Amino acid sequence: MIERYSVPEIKKIWSLENKFRRYLDVEIAVLESLEELKIIPKVSDKIKKKARINIKRIKEIEEKTKHDVIAFVQSIEEITGKEGRFFHYGLTSSDVIDTANALMLRETLTKILSLLKGLNESILKRAEENKYLISVGRTHGIHAEPITMGLKFLSWFSEMKRCEKRLEDTIEKISYGKISGAVGTYSQIPPEVEKLTLYKLGLKIEPVSTQVIPRDRYCEFMFSLVMIGEGIERIVTEIRNLQRTEIGELQEPFEEGQRGSSAMPHKKNPVLCERLCGMSRVLRGYLLSILENNALWNERDISHSSVERIVIPDASELTAYMIKTLKYIIDGIVINRENIKKNLELLSGLIFSSLVLNKLVEKGLMRKNAYGIVQRNAFKSEGTDGFLKNLLNDKEVRRYLSEDEIKGIFKFEHYLKNIDYIFEKVKNEI
Amino acid sequence: MIERYSVPEIKKIWSLENKFRRYLDVEIAVLESLEELKIIPKVSDKIKKKARINIKRIKEIEEKTKHDVIAFVQSIEEITGKEGRFFHYGLTSSDVIDTANALMLRETLTKILSLLKGLNESILKRAEENKYLISVGRTHGIHAEPITMGLKFLSWFSEMKRCEKRLEDTIEKISYGKISGAVGTYSQIPPEVEKLTLYKLGLKIEPVSTQVIPRDRYCEFMFSLVMIGEGIERIVTEIRNLQRTEIGELQEPFEEGQRGSSAMPHKKNPVLCERLCGMSRVLRGYLLSILENNALWNERDISHSSVERIVIPDASELTAYMIKTLKYIIDGIVINRENIKKNLELLSGLIFSSLVLNKLVEKGLMRKNAYGIVQRNAFKSEGTDGFLKNLLNDKEVRRYLSEDEIKGIFKFEHYLKNIDYIFEKVKNEI
Amino acid sequence: MIERYSVPEIKKIWSLENKFRRYLDVEIAVLESLEELKIIPKVSDKIKKKARINIKRIKEIEEKTKHDVIAFVQSIEEITGKEGRFFHYGLTSSDVIDTANALMLRETLTKILSLLKGLNESILKRAEENKYLISVGRTHGIHAEPITMGLKFLSWFSEMKRCEKRLEDTIEKISYGKISGAVGTYSQIPPEVEKLTLYKLGLKIEPVSTQVIPRDRYCEFMFSLVMIGEGIERIVTEIRNLQRTEIGELQEPFEEGQRGSSAMPHKKNPVLCERLCGMSRVLRGYLLSILENNALWNERDISHSSVERIVIPDASELTAYMIKTLKYIIDGIVINRENIKKNLELLSGLIFSSLVLNKLVEKGLMRKNAYGIVQRNAFKSEGTDGFLKNLLNDKEVRRYLSEDEIKGIFKFEHYLKNIDYIFEKVKNEI
Amino acid sequence: MIERYSVPEIKKIWSLENKFRRYLDVEIAVLESLEELKIIPKVSDKIKKKARINIKRIKEIEEKTKHDVIAFVQSIEEITGKEGRFFHYGLTSSDVIDTANALMLRETLTKILSLLKGLNESILKRAEENKYLISVGRTHGIHAEPITMGLKFLSWFSEMKRCEKRLEDTIEKISYGKISGAVGTYSQIPPEVEKLTLYKLGLKIEPVSTQVIPRDRYCEFMFSLVMIGEGIERIVTEIRNLQRTEIGELQEPFEEGQRGSSAMPHKKNPVLCERLCGMSRVLRGYLLSILENNALWNERDISHSSVERIVIPDASELTAYMIKTLKYIIDGIVINRENIKKNLELLSGLIFSSLVLNKLVEKGLMRKNAYGIVQRNAFKSEGTDGFLKNLLNDKEVRRYLSEDEIKGIFKFEHYLKNIDYIFEKVKNEI
Repeated sequence: MIERYSVPEIKKIWSLENKFRRYLDVEIAVLESLEELKIIPKVSDKIKKKARINIKRIKEIEEKTKHDVIAFVQSIEEITGKEGRFFHYGLTSSDVIDTANALMLRETLTKILSLLKGLNESILKRAEENKYLISVGRTHGIHAEPITMGLKFLSWFSEMKRCEKRLEDTIEKISYGKISGAVGTYSQIPPEVEKLTLYKLGLKIEPVSTQVIPRDRYCEFMFSLVMIGEGIERIVTEIRNLQRTEIGELQEPFEEGQRGSSAMPHKKNPVLCERLCGMSRVLRGYLLSILENNALWNERDISHSSVERIVIPDASELTAYMIKTLKYIIDGIVINRENIKKNLELLSGLIFSSLVLNKLVEKGLMRKNAYGIVQRNAFKSEGTDGFLKNLLNDKEVRRYLSEDEIKGIFKFEHYLKNIDYIFEKVKNEI
Repeated sequence: MIERYSVPEIKKIWSLENKFRRYLDVEIAVLESLEELKIIPKVSDKIKKKARINIKRIKEIEEKTKHDVIAFVQSIEEITGKEGRFFHYGLTSSDVIDTANALMLRETLTKILSLLKGLNESILKRAEENKYLISVGRTHGIHAEPITMGLKFLSWFSEMKRCEKRLEDTIEKISYGKISGAVGTYSQIPPEVEKLTLYKLGLKIEPVSTQVIPRDRYCEFMFSLVMIGEGIERIVTEIRNLQRTEIGELQEPFEEGQRGSSAMPHKKNPVLCERLCGMSRVLRGYLLSILENNALWNERDISHSSVERIVIPDASELTAYMIKTLKYIIDGIVINRENIKKNLELLSGLIFSSLVLNKLVEKGLMRKNAYGIVQRNAFKSEGTDGFLKNLLNDKEVRRYLSEDEIKGIFKFEHYLKNIDYIFEKVKNEI
Repeated sequence: MIERYSVPEIKKIWSLENKFRRYLDVEIAVLESLEELKIIPKVSDKIKKKARINIKRIKEIEEKTKHDVIAFVQSIEEITGKEGRFFHYGLTSSDVIDTANALMLRETLTKILSLLKGLNESILKRAEENKYLISVGRTHGIHAEPITMGLKFLSWFSEMKRCEKRLEDTIEKISYGKISGAVGTYSQIPPEVEKLTLYKLGLKIEPVSTQVIPRDRYCEFMFSLVMIGEGIERIVTEIRNLQRTEIGELQEPFEEGQRGSSAMPHKKNPVLCERLCGMSRVLRGYLLSILENNALWNERDISHSSVERIVIPDASELTAYMIKTLKYIIDGIVINRENIKKNLELLSGLIFSSLVLNKLVEKGLMRKNAYGIVQRNAFKSEGTDGFLKNLLNDKEVRRYLSEDEIKGIFKFEHYLKNIDYIFEKVKNEI
Repeated sequence: MIERYSVPEIKKIWSLENKFRRYLDVEIAVLESLEELKIIPKVSDKIKKKARINIKRIKEIEEKTKHDVIAFVQSIEEITGKEGRFFHYGLTSSDVIDTANALMLRETLTKILSLLKGLNESILKRAEENKYLISVGRTHGIHAEPITMGLKFLSWFSEMKRCEKRLEDTIEKISYGKISGAVGTYSQIPPEVEKLTLYKLGLKIEPVSTQVIPRDRYCEFMFSLVMIGEGIERIVTEIRNLQRTEIGELQEPFEEGQRGSSAMPHKKNPVLCERLCGMSRVLRGYLLSILENNALWNERDISHSSVERIVIPDASELTAYMIKTLKYIIDGIVINRENIKKNLELLSGLIFSSLVLNKLVEKGLMRKNAYGIVQRNAFKSEGTDGFLKNLLNDKEVRRYLSEDEIKGIFKFEHYLKNIDYIFEKVKNEI
């Protein structure tokens, strides 16, 4: 990932250095297993003592062999003496790569999961703080009925919580290794080695591997990241909408010294939210590429490799960056109660129209007719504050509803009565 | 879906007729719940008796109101008498649409799951029949080491079995309804109605709904279909590759009377397999569109609706079509044992190169050197049948390996010894 | 495409009936060319007289042969007597299919182009009508500087005009046929037949065909549709944003009798605009599928066919639907001058901040300092109407600017002076 | 792009260093234009003398202002003395960014175009060298009719040549700048400045800009890269297929010292071709993200920026890498004439079936019957070398064709007669 959006703790996982370290972990675990099963003599102690990751040397050998795992193996073999010849014994490159990948994917998702939990706590905190802060709900961009600001945050929390769950499931789904050899038949070393090795590494055994771990697991990995991006995109799109000059209900943090525009000094723009929207698009594109990797030819081809080398680290860093940035936004979000109130009252009561409709139906009007009557009064009131007055003056309405009944409808409290219930429901889920 | 690829039992689920029938199911369940909770008088019996789906009438009303749910509601109201005014009482359209959607999505996935189970049985059957049919494994399109044809099928089975599991999980994830009103606050009718209604329909309660069910559930739905497509694409790509004239190991069914090409009468082409490859591309495209639906504005906008109206039925039919077609292919697949044997022997023993390498390492050679020696002998043998002979004549090799040891390597049985284990492993999983 | 979004004049082009009619056109043109070149005897007159498209019969034969072109050919052969044996003489199916496709793609794009021109006239009309209607420009959703409403329409016009140009180019790019036989070598009939046939059909000769026309031409086709969708999406996204309750500057047509929400009678929602947004997502997904078709195997495989059968008609109808719907929206769009004016003045002059900044720089202040001063005054004024007053009272500002100079800045006319120039520029382009 | 696939000459274009240098180019051109038009005093000479790109300082300022263009401007202003206050006079950031982008996009495409031309020369060379090398053509993976190896290369050349043309067109389409201020109204500086500035930079004037250049131009940019990837994918997919052990007609270069597999020393895998296949998937994903950028809100939002910062440099480097790698492959490709011949004869004449069919039709048989007869003989001959013999012995066939006539059909030369014509056709095009 470009420096601007890099997340060092994730970048490190996918660094060459760390990748070869994980290869080494796998190779050592295999060696130990081979020893324990008496397939090879005791060599792992010596190898462990001497083995060092030497990127420069690996690159030199790769230059000639055009094969990075062979280069890695040779770089270890040549510094570990006679015992080194058992290094990579009976293995094919993908035994090492895909098993190490599982370790790195798990490390990545575990880190992202922990970031996500932090974010979700922040969101829930805002939900609870604003639980009863009544504000207008909008559908199609048009005022609908009141909600509370806390409910909006709770809705985000609920979706992001599903992302947490999905991530946990995905960690299980990608924690599979394979030490089954060139085409998955254990032709050189018996299944017991695989069992023992993966046990040491905390991984599960792929039921049927070819030369590689089947790529549907990588699709799951990428899907779980994309869905985090999707959830974040929904949240920041909302913040962008609510930060509009005419709405002004929410505002992403704007720091002392910050400048919004090189031309217009008055500007405070939701640039972080916009940035995250863009990033969600990037993640969706990455998913596409990973999905196309699934149908490898025969017992494998290596067309997936270039995709994974590019996309997996980039997608991982980007997702982490998005979570961290959204947490920063949520933690510093400015909630403008004055504008929220102003907007709530903007339509002078039109947002009570559904309650009026229902009340007329209760009183015996056919729905279709009731709708027509309310719609007529509503449209007549557009741009004025006259909806209540119009209803009071409408003879048809008054045949069914008294003044008190009508006035009784125009109360925001009708919308608050079940907020506690919804919060309770969510709390019970987690 | 176009007629050519249509699957009637799925098409029916998404027909206008059935859609409105599901709307009716939801509305009736709500009415009954409202009655039981004494919120409205007893009207459901009468309405149930009189209600009829009248597509023509619905379209007439929609023409004027530009709103299909209002049209549907009005079409029922106008034939159910005075009681009809309680039809849709306290609801917003999406209470009905999204809850009915959950029913139809579940119906769809349940049907697809059952088709998938049938396919998987067919694949497993082929796997077991060909469990010990030794054939060459290929990586990068190049002969690698022997496998068995059954193992190939088993690898497909294993992936498709994960699709089954994913589908079952997805059925759970999309079986959520909502009867929470215009913006999810239960402003008109209390949560008890939702609880009762969804219980009647066998659905779970969405923890936090806005006007709609959050669309991440629909992303899961689409992802589960795409992954079936992905698995199928891997299988049929393999059949296409193995049906190549030069390979000729597998062949999709070619029926009596079938004609492969309008110009070339000798042709038997894997056209079904190619067709399914294309369809997997279509599914991937659909996923993209569904993913872009997630970030709806505010308490909802309706931009997702056109996408879902087009994509969900089409993707559902297409997936069902793909499963059915693949089952037909697998059930009728022609396995050419002669060609399998011929290909296995094509490289005259080069495919034993890894066993030779390992043996040399065991005998004390450094891996790097052993590799060099074997590679040298292998390349010298290309296009000849001389690999074994070359090894026997190679002085360096002979310093480590006796004639008997070398000859002992060139046996296919080395590759069969763990086939049972792999089959066992899979059997234990299911 | 589903009935709801179907466009009959496009659907007809891709109907089975019309497809076979185009096949017939190609076959007849080939026959005539073969005759003219004396390769076959004179048979075309008889065949033309007797040939009829009989879908039912074609399907019957296809049922058995599993090949739709063979079925079509046979259905003609069997009603055209002895001469009929020359029908499809020397051809391969794709000679007919891909050449007929070129005809249908051209027919489609020509129709879409004509719809697009109609739309663009409507947009330009609105641009000119509102050329001087000053309104606030927004960046990042935040008020920036004034523009005119006409300029906004002109910006849309300019993008959509590029779509027109692209479409014209694409018509050229897809108007290629091939009559080069099974693998493009003219093995049965000489290149002269191709030349003559395509001349009759008004198509160009594919420089190098395999069995098929290379699929990059289809990618161009789909890209040209997607870009129309993109342009439309930008326009309707803007209308959706400007129709928001708090903004209220634009409103898509809302007809007499229309109902916006089943629950809330007061609603007028931009549902058409939202619908088109969704459709643009669908088009993007289709592009993906078409792009994956390009890398066919060898001299062709037929994996592209299922994709094209589904996607090309659907994408074509959808694009036409979108253009027609947007034209309806633009023609009936409601422009609320009152709200436009109210919004323009909402920030009480903050939107002049860039002019103040520039003026201070002109007077000798370093940009950085000028920015700081203006920003300070702007932020102090937020939510008040005091920006002008604050500037007048700011000692640092007043060191550089007189009262008259400051007041002279706060005039909307500064933003109108080059509107004519921009309109002129566009007019000169077309 | 990750180091492994990096192309330094492209990376440099998109480096921070170079980006700010292009910003400086634009700012200077504006300053000079302002001077020439007497809008500001003569300052550009001094500024040019003193201005330096100081990344460290820019980052320091950005840290505080959260705005990279402001940071850049300030970093210049603070080292250019009093005159520096006119630096960025009257501009908005996007005037600089988007105009500089046009310069960098053009630089990128020009470089890629030159690489592409080099590749195309290599492909054409191979086409001509192998113009008459007869080899089997395959459709659906099944032997069809003979072609020549040169024709295959020519078909690639023809597609890649279209990529060249598209690239040239795209260079025109993205060579647009804008100096029209905050929302495109030339509020601070007159259109003459834009005209003069862009003339100096060799760019065209965007007809209607908002704050930014409309993003459909960037879609064109990305599409032109993706289509290069598509063409390359088709070529390398073919090489992969023809390198299969059973086919062995083509082989990508395998260098002295190279090692194909860590386990199997005998392997020579088409790993470069597979790598390029993966990369084409990555490009397709990138296109998706860029396409989603088009519908910016209002006079712009900045959601496109993160996408472009990531995707544009990565896509540019990747495309360049792909072209260079394919050129290496084509230049070093191994063509195995022996296998080509062997494959050509593999079906012992079945590939002449279409000629037999045609001949029978000429002799008076109805096509349908002729087809049946040839198919029957062909299927009977499968796996044997008896097609010719079977035909000779078939009484129905012999009623129409003499021994000489039948034998006369079985000649490869029938397929070579128009090869010159096709090559000529392509040569005339370029």
